[in-house]
Amino acid sequence: LADLLPAMDGDTKTMTFLQEVVDILLAYIVESFDRETKVVDFHYPNELLQMNNWELQDEPATLDDILISCRATLKYAIKTAHPRYFNQLSTGLDMVGLAADWLTSTANTNMFTYEVAPVFVLLEYVTLKKMREIIGWSDGRGDGIFSPGGAISNMYAMLLARFKMFPEVKEKGMSSVPRLAAFTSEHSHFSIKKGAAALGIGTESVICIKADESGKLIPADLERRILEGFVPFFVSATAGTTVYGAFDPLIAISDICKKYNVWMHVDGAWGGSLLMSRRHRWKLDGVERANSVTWNPHKMMSVPLQCSALLVREEGLMQNCNQMHACYLFQQDKHYDLSYDTGDKALQCGRHVDIFKLWLMWRAKVGKSSLFEAIQHHCNLKSSSLYLPQPCFPQNIPRSGAFSPCSFCVFTQPQHTNVCFWYLPPGIRYMEDKEERKKHLHKVAPVIKARMMEYGTTMVSYQPQGDKVNFFRMVISNPAATFEDIDFLIEEIERLGQDL
Amino acid sequence: LADLLPAMDGDTKTMTFLQEVVDILLAYIVESFDRETKVVDFHYPNELLQMNNWELQDEPATLDDILISCRATLKYAIKTAHPRYFNQLSTGLDMVGLAADWLTSTANTNMFTYEVAPVFVLLEYVTLKKMREIIGWSDGRGDGIFSPGGAISNMYAMLLARFKMFPEVKEKGMSSVPRLAAFTSEHSHFSIKKGAAALGIGTESVICIKADESGKLIPADLERRILEGFVPFFVSATAGTTVYGAFDPLIAISDICKKYNVWMHVDGAWGGSLLMSRRHRWKLDGVERANSVTWNPHKMMSVPLQCSALLVREEGLMQNCNQMHACYLFQQDKHYDLSYDTGDKALQCGRHVDIFKLWLMWRAKVGKSSLFEAIQHHCNLKSSSLYLPQPCFPQNIPRSGAFSPCSFCVFTQPQHTNVCFWYLPPGIRYMEDKEERKKHLHKVAPVIKARMMEYGTTMVSYQPQGDKVNFFRMVISNPAATFEDIDFLIEEIERLGQDL
Repeated sequence: LADLLPAMDGDTKTMTFLQEVVDILLAYIVESFDRETKVVDFHYPNELLQMNNWELQDEPATLDDILISCRATLKYAIKTAHPRYFNQLSTGLDMVGLAADWLTSTANTNMFTYEVAPVFVLLEYVTLKKMREIIGWSDGRGDGIFSPGGAISNMYAMLLARFKMFPEVKEKGMSSVPRLAAFTSEHSHFSIKKGAAALGIGTESVICIKADESGKLIPADLERRILEGFVPFFVSATAGTTVYGAFDPLIAISDICKKYNVWMHVDGAWGGSLLMSRRHRWKLDGVERANSVTWNPHKMMSVPLQCSALLVREEGLMQNCNQMHACYLFQQDKHYDLSYDTGDKALQCGRHVDIFKLWLMWRAKVGKSSLFEAIQHHCNLKSSSLYLPQPCFPQNIPRSGAFSPCSFCVFTQPQHTNVCFWYLPPGIRYMEDKEERKKHLHKVAPVIKARMMEYGTTMVSYQPQGDKVNFFRMVISNPAATFEDIDFLIEEIERLGQDL
Repeated sequence: LADLLPAMDGDTKTMTFLQEVVDILLAYIVESFDRETKVVDFHYPNELLQMNNWELQDEPATLDDILISCRATLKYAIKTAHPRYFNQLSTGLDMVGLAADWLTSTANTNMFTYEVAPVFVLLEYVTLKKMREIIGWSDGRGDGIFSPGGAISNMYAMLLARFKMFPEVKEKGMSSVPRLAAFTSEHSHFSIKKGAAALGIGTESVICIKADESGKLIPADLERRILEGFVPFFVSATAGTTVYGAFDPLIAISDICKKYNVWMHVDGAWGGSLLMSRRHRWKLDGVERANSVTWNPHKMMSVPLQCSALLVREEGLMQNCNQMHACYLFQQDKHYDLSYDTGDKALQCGRHVDIFKLWLMWRAKVGKSSLFEAIQHHCNLKSSSLYLPQPCFPQNIPRSGAFSPCSFCVFTQPQHTNVCFWYLPPGIRYMEDKEERKKHLHKVAPVIKARMMEYGTTMVSYQPQGDKVNFFRMVISNPAATFEDIDFLIEEIERLGQDL
């Protein structure tokens, strides 16, 4: 280890070491895409803790130990690139994105100033402008920042909305502000409430608006609740809800926001990437009327984790809201155009370079062809496999696959690539007592998921929602997935659950 | 591009492409450590924008274009690993850390649940426990999380302190809470005020406590201000201030916090790593009495960006403060020990894997030898190059180097590896009018810095502080730096500034 750079003449030893690591990584990548490999070699936490020497020792390891640790870490990792990994909204591994992330690590710098990250700061500038153009803001004007995830982007939006209405809150805090109210659908992401708790607004000030059966916010209910009293300052519409993949009606919501002079935010963390699709972007019609938009390229666009943008329509607001003028970082007597020192817009001081992987993938993939096609590919997979136009429980499901009729039930019309469904094992398929059946059904998904992880063949998520007991939520955002992989998932669920 | 994985038989093409990228990166690494190379090939933003094809096109690039973009990006990047890069608190590039970060990108997963990041979640658990042991909390008990940077870690601490005293704030917001007061030294990091603004506390509620000449908070002034009225809830002591590298007197501060029942936070983002040094950890004596500690291994410990930990003494508090029970992520009927699903402790939903690089470096370097030695190395470099025990402006500086007497002035006794100093060009060295001299001196550092960047030979930071006009702040945290590199910096400053 002492022979690696910066040691004198450490070049050769360093190249050899890094190349050995790269060889391990390349082998892992090839394996990850191989359907013969397991998605996970699962072990319970206490087991896994004992299976390898993970504890930190007082004696330094050798270079060989380090390589062994790398292999062990990958052995027990989840293969998120695997074509049969359907577990999260972010799946897959893009090769250009990966190369860009390796370069980012090697450049090892910080986004706060042009001084230390000239290229990355420019690429962020160029890319944010393009994203704003795509949203539909004229000439791509506005502002924005890449943040560590959609939850933080949403929190930024709420922070900006409050500051816009009550700029004195920055100095004087919430005691200078009347009782506020924020509004979001009952299907929205939990980060809206987390943000309100953190910002001192309080979760009780987040009013949950009713959603219809498909998961879309009901505008009439929004207007009714806005009229109830407290000062409305923030509406967060969701473009692509986490569970159902529903798109709130942005145009109707924006009319209400305009009428009551409320900041309109669109949480497009999941669905925002449909703006890149000619065929699907209508689902976000009205997004150009928003004051701010969250859009996570690390989800549907398959950019490596993390890559989340907040786009803001008003220029200068982020800077005014968050700046503290730290004179050791944002010196005002520098010799270049200070508008490129973007760090004071953020709550973070140091900020990881998340832009390069998006920028490089955009260069590689956007155009008449592939990035559009990738999203198209995801949407096609969704629509032709488990698609059902109507809630059907417990009707038959018309589908050509191998599983038996009535064993699966897709209960909302998919609007995005989320497909939510129950598996009905033979034992409860014809139960007559509805409550009894629900009770049993609730336990089915967790058992199948546990078995699935132990077999390690595929992974899919499940959860309850409102009055709906535990159901599976298959999400397609992995460019490696095919129809056959989805069939595999379905058959695996049936195989693992037929005795339940 | 379409031939890369996940394309059928994409293995070979993918390995070739990634290997080509790796070859570019390896060449860049070797170049970065070469003193014959420039630290930066500087261009003004508008120039740089035009020097390469950075704009996003509508036509997809070829693989060759992608490689060209990678080379161009590195050509204009700041070589943060360069032995003569002294510009930030985080400098250098560690080869084990880099390898770990490449692995992290390849694993491409998310820290929210054990389900999708089993190994990384365990490594975070093991490492946080070790860090708490080192702080001195018995058996390493307590809590913690890795967050996207010290500013966010500090904000978490403030959030926890408020919640601990007024748990109802989570639901009801700041309207349920009396007027609060937070306390921190006038030399503390700006993130304390940023946090207060964001959390709805307001910057006016952050009381700045006087620091002595060396930059340490004055405890008597803290006590005096605590008694002034508003409800004291949070004291942030700094272990290693950003500019001077000063260590606040933690024992005296903890006595006051105990007396008035106030949460004591230690912002050790910069200085916390001295806990790893047998010889220097006394500077943090009393840290074990803190309620929370920020510690950024990405600074003095040279872990690649970003890696920041918040350690919390009380178990369970983070979970209670931040959890929202999102049922699609933190299902309560999973088959494994749910205490490993740490995501609901965070404000983030998705969270980047920042642990592996620290864990792997710790394995490689901690022990009787090198990580301790690396810190020792930094501290040695600091103390033998520009060290001066007393403010000396405009006295002579006893030093063996090549520059002339009286040309440099180190004005505080360095407590960490920050060395703050003025360069006094001949033209103003003997000016008699003090105000006039100050005015001139203020303009010296920015001009030298601008010239330095155009030459690209080295980089160092500057800023004013309080009544002190612009001065240079050299920071040593790069294991590649030697005495000769510091001499080079000093001579370069003199060379570039002697006509001023």
